[in-house]
Amino acid sequence: MINVGILGLGGLGKAAAQVLSQKQEMRLVAVCDRSGYAYDPQGLDYRQLTLTPADNGIQILQQKPIDAFFLALPNLPNTFMAEVAEDFSRSGWRGVLVDALKRTSAMEQILALNDQLQQSQITYMTGCGATPGLLTAAAVVAAQSFSEVHKVEIRFGVGIANWTAYRATIREDIAHMPGYDLEKAKAMTDAEIEALLEQTNGILTLENMEHADDLMLERLGICHRSQVTVGGIVDTRNPKKPISTHMKLTGRTFEGKIATHTFTLGDETSMAANVCGPAFGYLKAGKQLHDRGIYGVFTAAEVMPQFVR
Amino acid sequence: MINVGILGLGGLGKAAAQVLSQKQEMRLVAVCDRSGYAYDPQGLDYRQLTLTPADNGIQILQQKPIDAFFLALPNLPNTFMAEVAEDFSRSGWRGVLVDALKRTSAMEQILALNDQLQQSQITYMTGCGATPGLLTAAAVVAAQSFSEVHKVEIRFGVGIANWTAYRATIREDIAHMPGYDLEKAKAMTDAEIEALLEQTNGILTLENMEHADDLMLERLGICHRSQVTVGGIVDTRNPKKPISTHMKLTGRTFEGKIATHTFTLGDETSMAANVCGPAFGYLKAGKQLHDRGIYGVFTAAEVMPQFVR
Repeated sequence: MINVGILGLGGLGKAAAQVLSQKQEMRLVAVCDRSGYAYDPQGLDYRQLTLTPADNGIQILQQKPIDAFFLALPNLPNTFMAEVAEDFSRSGWRGVLVDALKRTSAMEQILALNDQLQQSQITYMTGCGATPGLLTAAAVVAAQSFSEVHKVEIRFGVGIANWTAYRATIREDIAHMPGYDLEKAKAMTDAEIEALLEQTNGILTLENMEHADDLMLERLGICHRSQVTVGGIVDTRNPKKPISTHMKLTGRTFEGKIATHTFTLGDETSMAANVCGPAFGYLKAGKQLHDRGIYGVFTAAEVMPQFVR
Repeated sequence: MINVGILGLGGLGKAAAQVLSQKQEMRLVAVCDRSGYAYDPQGLDYRQLTLTPADNGIQILQQKPIDAFFLALPNLPNTFMAEVAEDFSRSGWRGVLVDALKRTSAMEQILALNDQLQQSQITYMTGCGATPGLLTAAAVVAAQSFSEVHKVEIRFGVGIANWTAYRATIREDIAHMPGYDLEKAKAMTDAEIEALLEQTNGILTLENMEHADDLMLERLGICHRSQVTVGGIVDTRNPKKPISTHMKLTGRTFEGKIATHTFTLGDETSMAANVCGPAFGYLKAGKQLHDRGIYGVFTAAEVMPQFVR
């Protein structure tokens, strides 16, 4: 049984808690948000999370026997995830940390902590959501048929009935749009976001997004980061996906043939399923590494995720 | 630089030698066939392989500084791959072995050698071709979105211009057809195979094949082996694939939605590219495990293949 804590209780953190409730091999024992924390070594009920108010919930939980944390935190500002990782590294806590961060620049900060996390005996799994994560792993598998990889295209479709359930995620998405950045998106009021969505009929079209899939594939020698593009269409008013989420990898085989492998996600799978499922699959893989005494930072492209029953 | 040997010089072994010639990180230093062997620590030219006649080529090569062997052997009889593995285990040679075997019963024999191979400090990667291999790995990645996996369907299309370039592989395929088994297929003369192919217009239709994808996914707790089916259509007279090779995984998400993820291989990729590419990707991953002192048997579903430049 793996005892898991979740940091962050926005839409992603709440979905993660629900996902965990269906796992026999993992138990949700801790949650923490800006407002406070909850801890029960016997397991928490995700439907009734009563937080004890505290400013230092993370520090309190770092003293508990928790095997792993899923960092379901919005990475705003862009240095936040690395700050949390450093804090864990200094705390004396040992175990597995998993993030589902998106931006290349945020992952670069995490990778720079490799030696420090190794010394702290922490196994840190980064980029373990849908993209990067699930679709990056599919790209690594797809690359195997080729002597040379020319292009990796990731396009996602997201449909949500109501953007207010994903306030932080939608702000991160807006930050990818032309004319916006993280600071500007974060500073927007809900009313300003409503007004923006009114103009686009609820649709956000995202192109050439800064996603760490590029860095992850470049690190493995699969292609140059400029050959990896990530984009998507988010419908904030309709749970149906506007396009099927997919990854296309094009390359040249040893015989000189150019071909494209495609990995397509079923439309009925939600963003929450495609992010939280992989996150816990990588958490389990990270636990196996940690049990073997293998510490430091690993990306979702380097390690096979494990299936969590 | 990883020094690699190839055992078996049928269609698969020859293609593997050609694939290696395009890799900067690996060097083909040894080949061995029933008739003899070749060894050159500076590297062999795959276009001009001159074998030194010998009955005991494998034993000679086991004394050489070779990091890894790709066992490009037809698994006929069904115990042959495990016999080769045991022979390596007894020889005192240490390194990485990779197979691209197909049958569940053959992989069970390999898995039973885990402790013995671990003691011999051999890291053995099994099922590292296309199916099992590439498509099984894609299934493991796809499974991440689901709380429960209901069905994994692998269907391959193979087109080859001339069956006589793949005599052993085609015999293995025929063994999967109704009314045939391994013994019977092995005993067929080329003329008998020609006559069979004449009846079917060169097409072999294979259903419910005994492929180790089922065992590999069951071992990881993804689903029961009966939920995994493998089939295919082989056109022995046309290099164009009769269907696109694909893997479909159907499951239930944590929200109760049923969905199917699909991984489809580009038609222009050959069987040789989809088998040899993954085999060397797993060989590189196996070398990393071996370098860390991690020995024993691993399936292609447990370890992320690495990209070989």
